[in-house]
Parts: sequence; C-alpha cells; structure tokens
Amino acid sequence: MRRHRIQLINPNTSQAMTETMAHTARTIASSRVEIDAVCPKEGVPSIEGHFDEAVATLGILQQIREGEDRGVNGHIIACFGDPGLLAARELAKGPVLGIAEAAMHVASMVATRFSIVTTLPRTVIIARHLLHRYGFYEQCAAVHAIDLPVLSLEDGSGLAQQKVREYCLNAKHNDNVGAIILGCGGMADLAAELSEELQMPVIDGVGAAVTLLESLLNLGITTSKWGDLDFPRNKGITGPYAACLNTPSS
Amino acid sequence: MRRHRIQLINPNTSQAMTETMAHTARTIASSRVEIDAVCPKEGVPSIEGHFDEAVATLGILQQIREGEDRGVNGHIIACFGDPGLLAARELAKGPVLGIAEAAMHVASMVATRFSIVTTLPRTVIIARHLLHRYGFYEQCAAVHAIDLPVLSLEDGSGLAQQKVREYCLNAKHNDNVGAIILGCGGMADLAAELSEELQMPVIDGVGAAVTLLESLLNLGITTSKWGDLDFPRNKGITGPYAACLNTPSS
Amino acid sequence: MRRHRIQLINPNTSQAMTETMAHTARTIASSRVEIDAVCPKEGVPSIEGHFDEAVATLGILQQIREGEDRGVNGHIIACFGDPGLLAARELAKGPVLGIAEAAMHVASMVATRFSIVTTLPRTVIIARHLLHRYGFYEQCAAVHAIDLPVLSLEDGSGLAQQKVREYCLNAKHNDNVGAIILGCGGMADLAAELSEELQMPVIDGVGAAVTLLESLLNLGITTSKWGDLDFPRNKGITGPYAACLNTPSS
Amino acid sequence: MRRHRIQLINPNTSQAMTETMAHTARTIASSRVEIDAVCPKEGVPSIEGHFDEAVATLGILQQIREGEDRGVNGHIIACFGDPGLLAARELAKGPVLGIAEAAMHVASMVATRFSIVTTLPRTVIIARHLLHRYGFYEQCAAVHAIDLPVLSLEDGSGLAQQKVREYCLNAKHNDNVGAIILGCGGMADLAAELSEELQMPVIDGVGAAVTLLESLLNLGITTSKWGDLDFPRNKGITGPYAACLNTPSS
Amino acid sequence: MRRHRIQLINPNTSQAMTETMAHTARTIASSRVEIDAVCPKEGVPSIEGHFDEAVATLGILQQIREGEDRGVNGHIIACFGDPGLLAARELAKGPVLGIAEAAMHVASMVATRFSIVTTLPRTVIIARHLLHRYGFYEQCAAVHAIDLPVLSLEDGSGLAQQKVREYCLNAKHNDNVGAIILGCGGMADLAAELSEELQMPVIDGVGAAVTLLESLLNLGITTSKWGDLDFPRNKGITGPYAACLNTPSS
Amino acid sequence: MRRHRIQLINPNTSQAMTETMAHTARTIASSRVEIDAVCPKEGVPSIEGHFDEAVATLGILQQIREGEDRGVNGHIIACFGDPGLLAARELAKGPVLGIAEAAMHVASMVATRFSIVTTLPRTVIIARHLLHRYGFYEQCAAVHAIDLPVLSLEDGSGLAQQKVREYCLNAKHNDNVGAIILGCGGMADLAAELSEELQMPVIDGVGAAVTLLESLLNLGITTSKWGDLDFPRNKGITGPYAACLNTPSS
Repeated sequence: MRRHRIQLINPNTSQAMTETMAHTARTIASSRVEIDAVCPKEGVPSIEGHFDEAVATLGILQQIREGEDRGVNGHIIACFGDPGLLAARELAKGPVLGIAEAAMHVASMVATRFSIVTTLPRTVIIARHLLHRYGFYEQCAAVHAIDLPVLSLEDGSGLAQQKVREYCLNAKHNDNVGAIILGCGGMADLAAELSEELQMPVIDGVGAAVTLLESLLNLGITTSKWGDLDFPRNKGITGPYAACLNTPSS
Repeated sequence: MRRHRIQLINPNTSQAMTETMAHTARTIASSRVEIDAVCPKEGVPSIEGHFDEAVATLGILQQIREGEDRGVNGHIIACFGDPGLLAARELAKGPVLGIAEAAMHVASMVATRFSIVTTLPRTVIIARHLLHRYGFYEQCAAVHAIDLPVLSLEDGSGLAQQKVREYCLNAKHNDNVGAIILGCGGMADLAAELSEELQMPVIDGVGAAVTLLESLLNLGITTSKWGDLDFPRNKGITGPYAACLNTPSS
Repeated sequence: MRRHRIQLINPNTSQAMTETMAHTARTIASSRVEIDAVCPKEGVPSIEGHFDEAVATLGILQQIREGEDRGVNGHIIACFGDPGLLAARELAKGPVLGIAEAAMHVASMVATRFSIVTTLPRTVIIARHLLHRYGFYEQCAAVHAIDLPVLSLEDGSGLAQQKVREYCLNAKHNDNVGAIILGCGGMADLAAELSEELQMPVIDGVGAAVTLLESLLNLGITTSKWGDLDFPRNKGITGPYAACLNTPSS
Repeated sequence: MRRHRIQLINPNTSQAMTETMAHTARTIASSRVEIDAVCPKEGVPSIEGHFDEAVATLGILQQIREGEDRGVNGHIIACFGDPGLLAARELAKGPVLGIAEAAMHVASMVATRFSIVTTLPRTVIIARHLLHRYGFYEQCAAVHAIDLPVLSLEDGSGLAQQKVREYCLNAKHNDNVGAIILGCGGMADLAAELSEELQMPVIDGVGAAVTLLESLLNLGITTSKWGDLDFPRNKGITGPYAACLNTPSS
Repeated sequence: MRRHRIQLINPNTSQAMTETMAHTARTIASSRVEIDAVCPKEGVPSIEGHFDEAVATLGILQQIREGEDRGVNGHIIACFGDPGLLAARELAKGPVLGIAEAAMHVASMVATRFSIVTTLPRTVIIARHLLHRYGFYEQCAAVHAIDLPVLSLEDGSGLAQQKVREYCLNAKHNDNVGAIILGCGGMADLAAELSEELQMPVIDGVGAAVTLLESLLNLGITTSKWGDLDFPRNKGITGPYAACLNTPSS
Repeated sequence: MRRHRIQLINPNTSQAMTETMAHTARTIASSRVEIDAVCPKEGVPSIEGHFDEAVATLGILQQIREGEDRGVNGHIIACFGDPGLLAARELAKGPVLGIAEAAMHVASMVATRFSIVTTLPRTVIIARHLLHRYGFYEQCAAVHAIDLPVLSLEDGSGLAQQKVREYCLNAKHNDNVGAIILGCGGMADLAAELSEELQMPVIDGVGAAVTLLESLLNLGITTSKWGDLDFPRNKGITGPYAACLNTPSS
C-alpha cells in the first residue's frame, strides 16, 4: 500500500507549538503516513487577528511551494483561522486542509451541535466567518474565548490549559451541545485528556486534519483543478511571492 | 495497530447493489479495515422517496443492533438519503456515517461548489433537505435527476450509467462547479472512471464514508453520548423494533 | 354540507395520552367533523428522540393505511416531532398534518415571534430541525425543555403541568415573544387554561392541527400527487411495512 | 355553535374584483360564517407596487376600524402583497390574515415546494420580501409574472386568464414543484378550474384565508396583545387616520 | 461645484424632534448642501409600531411630492423604522435614504458587528425586520430597548438620555461588538458625545443618511427607474394620496 | 472645512490601471479631497484568484503603513475582491473601504436587486463569498463573467469593454434587476457611459468607495478600535511584513 507524506504547516514561527502539533499529528497518523512538520523562518510568533493571518499566509504559501517541490502529498494549515486556505489550494497539487474546517467536519459527524473554545476574543470573529463559509454556523452553539493570548499555551504555567478546561466544562453544562472544538492548534495536546475527563468528544483540529487528509489521499481525491481552484495563472509575479510560482506545477 | 471492522449497511434488499458497494468499499478501505456488507432480508428493493426511507430505517436499525452485537466498530448507511441516520447514531456505540453526508464533506474539501447527479426526480427533495440540514446548501449548485429508477443501475443495459455520464458532463460544463457527487449508492463503481474521464473529482459516497469512518475510528471519536444522541431510553418497546433495545448498550 | 372524518394518530402506545388528545380534538372540531383517535398496538410508549420516532413511524404508516381503507378523509400525526410526516403524505390520499407544524403555522399568524416549551432536552434538536425545515426558525425565540419525560404528563402528580406553567411564565416575561407553543401532544389540555392565565396565545398543536386539517378539507386541497409526494412506487416491499402498500391507493 | 362574521377587505377600489373575491370566499366559507366584502371608497384601483400598497393601507385600516365597530370577528386583507398586515393586527381585536400568507401556509402543507404566478413584474419583489418575512423562501421555486396589469383580469377579454393558465402549465412542467399559488386576489375564481385541469393544487389566497381565519376563530385564538402587536398607543393622532383610534379598542 | 438641497423628513409631528435632527444634519452636511427639515402637519406625534408607521407613511409621501415640486435633490426618512422607504423611492426622482439603513451601512464599514439601542420594546421587531431585509442581520449582536417612549427624549428630564448612555455602556462591555447604533432619530444629538465617552463608534442615522445621500448625489446615482422602483403607474388614484401623483414625475 | 487626503491603493502592479482608477476617483471626489493613487512596486500584475489576492495583500498592507506615515486620512482597496480588507482595517487608523463593498452598498440604496459583471469565471466565487460576508447575497441576482482576463481591459483593443457592455445589456433584460455593478476596478471608466446608455445605475466601485470614504471622514467615524479590529498586537514580527508594524500606530 502506498505511503503518504503529509506536510503539517504551523503558520506561526513558534518552534514549541510546531512540536506540540507534530507530536499530536504523529500520534493520530496511520503507519503509512510520514509527517513533515514545518514553520516559517520569518513571520508572526502567533496568529490572533486578520493582520497576523495575512503575514502568516506568506509563509504558508512558501511552505506549500517547498513541500510540493520536496514531493509531499498533502498539506495541513495548522492554525484555527485556516489562513490562506483557498490560495494554498490553488497553489498545491496535493489536497490542503485547515485545522478549523477539519475539526468542524468531525464534530458534525458525532454531534448535532458543538461549541468552540478559543484564545483571545478578537479571534472569535474569524471563527464565526469560517462557520458561515463552511456551512456549520447553525451547528455551533457558541464560540468562547478564554481571553489569554495564543502563546500563553506555551508559557509553561499551565494557566491557559486550566482556563481551557474550565471553559470546556462550562460549555458542556450550559450550551446544550454534544461536542467541543478546541479553537487553537496550540491546544492539540489537550483533546485526549479532556475527552476522557468530560466524557464527550473534545476535538482537536490537528488530529482531525491529519486523518481527514489521509482519507482524501486514500480516495485519490485532490483539490479540483477544474474551475476556481485551478493553479494560479503565472502573469509575471515579482517580490517575495515570486518564488511560489517559479516551479510550474501544471 | 488496531484493526477496525466496519459494517456497510445497504438499506435496500438488492443483493447486487450490496455487492457493488462492498466492492467499492473494499477497494478504498485501508489494510487494517474489514468490511461487513449487509442488507436487510425484508424491506424495499430500492429507496426512492420518504416512504421507502421509513421502510428502510426499520432494517437499518436492526442491522445496527446486530452489528453492534457482533462487535463491529462503526456503521455506514449506504443510501444517498442517509435514512435513519440520527436514530442509528442514538442506537450505536460506534460512529455512524451516511453516504450522502460523507460525499458532501469530501466535496467541500476539494471544491468551492459541487453538483449532484441522482436517479428519480422525486429524490431531489431528499438531497435538498440534507444539504440544508448539513449546512452544504450554498455549496451545491444543482441537483440533477437522470429520471431513471435506482434499480435501472443494476439492469445490465448500461443505459443508466450512460445517462449518469451525460449529466456529469453537462454539470461540468454548465454548473460552474469543481466537483460532482454521485447521488446513489448504486453508482459507486462509476466514480473512478468518471473522475478520470472528466478530469475533476466525481465523488462516490460509499468510498467517502469508508475512509471518513476510518478517520473517526483512528481519532478514537464516536457519536457523543452527552446530549441528544445518547442511547434511546428503554421504556418498554414492543413490536418489530423491540429487539433493537434488548441488548442494552449503555 | 359534507361531513369529514379525521384520524388523529397518537404515534405512541399510551392510551391515556390518546384520550387526552382526542378530548382536545373533539372540543375544537366543528360539528361536521368526526374524530377517530387511534394509537398503535405495538411500538414505543413515548417519543423522546430519533430512535423513538423511527419506531413510531412504523405504527403511523400502518394507521394511515388502515384509516384510508376505513375511509377517513385526513390524518393528524399527534407527536410534536411530526415523525414520518412526508412518508405519510406519500402514502395517504387525504391530507396529513403534524401537530408541530400546525402549532407553528398558527403561532406565526398571531405573533411575530414565539417560544416553545417541550419535555426532555434531547427533543430540543428535533424542534430545531423542524423550525428550519418549515421556515419558522427566525420566528422562534427559544425552545425550553422542562426536563421531565413525556409520560410524567400522565403520572397524575401534576408536577409536569406545574413546570410547563412555570416555563411558560418565564418565556412570557423573558423571551420577548407574543405566543408560546406547547411542544408535546400530552400538553394539549393545558392550552386553554394557560392562555387564559397568561393572557396571550398558548398554542396546542392538536387543536391547531384539527382545525387546519378542516381548512384543507373545506378547500378540497390534499397532498399534491404531482412530484415528490406522489404515492410510493410499489416495487415489491416485504416485511412489516408490506401491508401498507397492498391496497393500492392510486 | 357560534357564528362568525368575517370581513373580506379588498384594498383596491375595484367593485368587480371585490365581487369576484366575495364569491370565492362565500363558496369556501362554512355555513356558520358570514362574509362582509368591502372595499375603500377612495384609493387606488389596483395594487402593483409599494406606493400603491401605502395608499391601500390607509383604506385597509379604516375598514378594520369600521369592521370592528360593526362587530366583525376577523379580517382578511385580500391583496397578494398583504399590505398593512402588521398595522392591521395592531389595530384589530380579531385575527387578521393576508391572502399571500394564507396561500403560502396552505401550499406548504400539501407540497414540498411551490411556484407563484403573479401579474406585473414589479410586484415580484413584494412576493419575494413576503417569502423571506414568513419563512417560505426556500420552499418557493419561482415567482412568475404574466406581465399584464391587475385590472386586465377584469377586462372581460380572458387574455389575462389565458396567460395565467399558460404560466401555471409551464410551472408545472419546469419548476419541479407540487403546487402553484395564484399571486393576485383577482385570480381567485381560477383556482378550482386550474386545479382540476392541472391535477395538482393551484391555490388561491382568498379561499385559503377564509378557511384559515375560521380555524383561528374556532380555536379562539386572536392576535397576541402581549408584545409588539398590542393596540397602538393613542398619542393624539391627527389627520385622515385619526378616526381609526377614536373608538378605543382596549 | 453643484449645490445640493436635501429634504430631511421627520415623519412624526414633533417640531422639537425635527429641530434636533435638523441641527445634527446641518452639522454633518458639507458646505455645498442645504438641509430642508420638514415634518407633517397632521399625523402621529411619535412612531412606535406598525400602525404608527402606516400613519407616518401618508405624511412622508406627501412631503416627498412637495419636496420634488420644490426642487429638492434627495430625501431622508428620519425615523429608525424607515417607514414607506420603497414607496418613497418609487415616487421620487431623487434618491431616498432611511436613517436605519444609513446607520447600518456605516456601522458595517467600521466594525464586524454592532448592537442597536432603541426606545420601546415593541419597536424591536421593526429593527429585526429591517436587519433581515437589508442583509445586516448576522452583523447585529443585539437590539436593546430602553423601555421609554420616543417622546421621553424630548421631555427635558434627561432620563431617556441617561438610559441610552447606560444601555450603550452595557452593550460595549457585554455584546462583543465594535459599534453601537442609536435606534431613534430623536437620539441624533447624542452620538458625538457618546462616541467620545465610549471611545468607539456610536452611530446616529441622521448624520449617516445626510452624508450617504451626499455620496449618491456626488455619484449622480439615483433610484433606478428600471424595474420595480419605477414611478407608480397613475391609474386614477382618489383620496388623500391623490395629490402625490398629480404632478407627473416621469 | 477640513481637507481630506485619501489613498487609492491599486493592489496590482499595473500602472495603467492605477491611472484609470485615479482618474475616476478624482472625477468623483469633492473639492476638499486629494487622491493619492498608489500601486505596489512588486507583486502581481492582476488579481484573478485567491493566490493573487494573498500576493496583493502584502503590497496593500505596506501601502497602508506608508500612507498612514504620510498622513493620509483614509484608504481604498481598489480591487473587486476587497483583498486584505479586515487586515488593513486592523492596521490603519483611518477608515478603509474596498471597492466591492462600496459598490454593493450603493447598489442596495438605489435598487432592490442587482447583478455583477466581472472578468474571469474563477473570480465569481470571490464575489459570492463577499456577498455572503457583507449580507448582500439575497440582493444579487447573478454574477456574470465575461471570460476575459483583467488586463484585457488595458490592451487597447476595446474587446473587453465591448463584452462588458453586452453582458450589462443582457443583465438588464434578463435578470430582473434595477442596477448593475462592474466587478473590476479596471472597468471604472465605463460606469458613466453605460449608465447613460442603459438608463439604469451601472455602478463602479472606485467612485462609490471615494464618496463613501468621504462620508465616513465627514462623520468623523473610523474603524472601531474596540474589539476585533483593534491594531495588531506587535509580538515581534519578522520578514517582509515587519515594517508594517515598526511605526506603532497606537
């Protein structure tokens, strides 16, 4: 049986978060899958708004290009806002999944409604927009923000983890939902333990994306190149993105 | 690595269609998965409306019960209307997927919009209702009916297959979509060939459901028993369904 | 003027609840209408989830068949989830109404927004799905569950009735609505008293369905047999449902 | 059994159209109902846009006032745009129905989808807005305009009637719907004949409103005066509308 | 550069409120714009429901007619329910804006979500309907009512102003919004001060409408007369509205 | 009266298109406004997909930064996909408008429904997503693509202009709309002529954005810094975007 190489792109520059997510991804991936965990050398240390997403997209597209050149078979954008998702789908030959969409797809298969627990309040609007874009808006009861920045998940104090747990417990008892989605890649390592403690699905998008991407690879289905996700037309790009198109994919 | 046993439930009584779908399922399943393909002994030979779905649900729930007793790990409802899906999720310990939802999830990961090609016009309303329920309504450009009954796919004449192909070609050129979903389990064997010919994803729900169900099993995530998909309360059921609850699951 | 015979189908096996609803139905029906109140001999004692609805649907369709054979002119499915509604519409010559849809139609004619008071929390999702399906979602402010099972309405303690009253009062004062719908057939006898006490429309679906069904009969309009609600195609059904089609309706 | 007196308000000044609608209303009404058919002395001869609706609303509210004073039990606004509906509900003690909403409620009880055939293209937007307001938008496949003014229905040539018939036939064969709504009160007399010819429900709002209003009267339910449809606060109105509030209703 | 004359129509008969709004309008208008502030001689002293809106519409349309005859270039309907907006657009040659729509357009340009603070609870439904009609429903977090009548804003006690301030502060801290809309023309003079105090956009529709109307006039764009907002067909109107059409505009 | 300096950012590198748009902008702007028309030195020559938008966003944000440093009062993103709009709003002190949203706001003020005429079919999905995001989806009848690339508008042949005209004429006669939006900044110079020829509003987003931005500046309202559009948190960005944050705005 064919082996797959999946590129896990952490769009921020945090090496610690990349490792947290890579560990989760490797725990979930089947034995026939190899995980390449990467993050950009330059960019933003964490993604907490639309500006941060724009910065991150630059790194994501460069990693997509380099990954494709290295022969990876598919890509994961491991930030809960799914930044640059459609641009990455245009650029890549292999399938591309965001961790937010992956978590939402999985939640909708095991519960009639779910809540999301995320980091800063300013990211809530990003989750809302994705829920609308993907069609899961009516299935989401609430998006809760613990009001701590993303990197607090890596500060070693455990405070952020404690708040995530509290918000999940509250959501379980007040939101009338059957599942909870962890709204940040940096929470990937909490899903198993919280699922066990709460006795309900607490879903991490990194694991969800790894296994859904395997699904697409097993099906032999990749981003459609018929229509609006076709490869970008190369019209003579200049500047930092130019390298993305200099190895024609089609 | 743990092995999984997946029950593929064809809700109609057609043995030929069960075999067509089992073949596709086994082609897609990874080496660690065993497919139990079953269909009810009694019921309706094909499912082409709401009454047929009600009939089929009876058989589905009995197969869910028997499969759980045999120790299968998850279930697929292999009819494009996803009949009895939420009832089955209540009844089963393992995860349950319908082939319509599975196909729609996959389509939404590889294209911004898709069309559906189904059998009789009277089934179009069922697809529409599912698109709304699941949240994919805005992503679906059109639901086309070839206006032939389900069993014409098994009559050996090839006429239905020819019409499916024609409708897919028309959808490709007129609907401004990136993917096409085959809206009947009996079309499962056409997806690979049509994808190749049309050079775009033509998605079959049976294969999609097999691999998405593997994803859930790999993640260790099953239907939430917290909330509205909890096991049915056993209040002393009588009649043909009584057996479904006589081996308490919880 | 023509007389009408309306079959009131209680889809659960509770004789007490059948009588409660029959009494309400007869109070509302005009003098030219006769009410046949029936319930299945076998099935589920109360309906509190999707599995229960699947069980109930079997009995409903058999009653539809028998009622049509007896010459009834129309049918009411007297469970707030409207189980099997579209299947019943396919099967019957006469019009079929569910009590949930009936209550929602009436509420929308006398108030700009309404709330629903139902029994167990796990039935809330069923009401939500109906609100979406029927188009009344935006007109519903909240669905409240008293968190007692359906049959507590028949236990003689009056506790459930007391909680219904409390929840209705709360809805009146907090939900900014003009009407309240009682979300269970077993609450049918409370509507008049609560309307009087709260001085606002408290709507019971049984009464609503009786009178709306009379409306359809007076108009001479029944379920359209052009299109997707046409009679089921009889393709050789076997098993418990077979009898439903053995007296061809068309 | 109590008798009911229903006021049928034709909001335009056409006596011929008032009579057409009164005839239909009396055919549908049960023997315990008396129909008062009225139209304003001054106003607009036909209603084909938002300005016309504003003009018509003045007359409607005056008729509501006068009807209440005369002791009628309920009111029908017999123009397909349901002009002034919520204002009339505030003003009246008895229930008020518009013929557009009535037709849509009935259509949604007998078909999964319907189309509308109306008069001038400029009225299509009014039907669209109502479909959204009432929640029936997804159930409407198309709104077709015959492109003739309302009064052409009364010119004796039969041309408008012929075009209505053609558009209904086209809708039957092309729209994948189970019912058709006649989108003008002046088409009330065509419904029975077209239903017979097309062998599918062709629904007229006047008849629908008469019988639904009877339903409300039988249920003893009227417009909620708790909340936003309460009687208008009388703050010292002056001008043509002043008379509407000079007989305090509350 | 061309000068513009804008008619600010206060649809109620309160001269004090007309002056409040005229003052705000003149503060916002550019030097090339002249503001004609008018209110009807007869009608309703404040607008707090659908009946009041119907009354007000009569005066609005007469002012539109008179304003057009005087040569004004555009019109503002200065009541937060935008009464008679589409009728006014049909009647007028120049563009017409409502203050509710104007405030919502502006809010959506400077924040991802907003709340509304209005007067009586019974007006909330009017704001909701407008949010749906205009497409801003998802962008509105909440509509809060201070539960005081419109004219309390003119009673000199300052109580209503104090409550508006309190509700704005609460909305800022609880609604997770970036802007607040003042939901009554009589609050126009509070926007600047509250914006300053709350350090976030507090938007008044009168100022918003003045400047958006200037935008349309600068663009040379007015209500489309192609299609459903074309001038009303003059079919021989009689009664109080007749004068509106006696100076043909087209 | 205060003067305003508005930065018109053409996000592609075409100098010709920048000049076309600057010319239109200056024609529309009032005498108190100065237009700074800029385009990035590096980037993509035209924007026809999500990848192109990601590239363009880099240049847009750098121009926002430089413009703010130069003291401009507001910004226009002059590409019909409104790329980077929310990121730009976070970064800038002054208000920011996209030309797609501006055109849609204006269209909704002068017509009940509109159509869009754009360039390549692959950009249609971008317009659809914006229509949903902004809330104008129901008001848009159709998005038509002339199937020519953006730069064909600058090739001097007039072919693209001819096709735009044809598609506008078709939309006028077939779409039942009152206005047409030109879906590309490069079509800015066609709006006046087409409006004249078609005798209906043909709306260009560049002019619309200039005048709406003036409105915001006149109102003294800018992007809310309370909530999710607050300035980006500066967490130590590195790489090409770093310069955007090195002149702290807050």
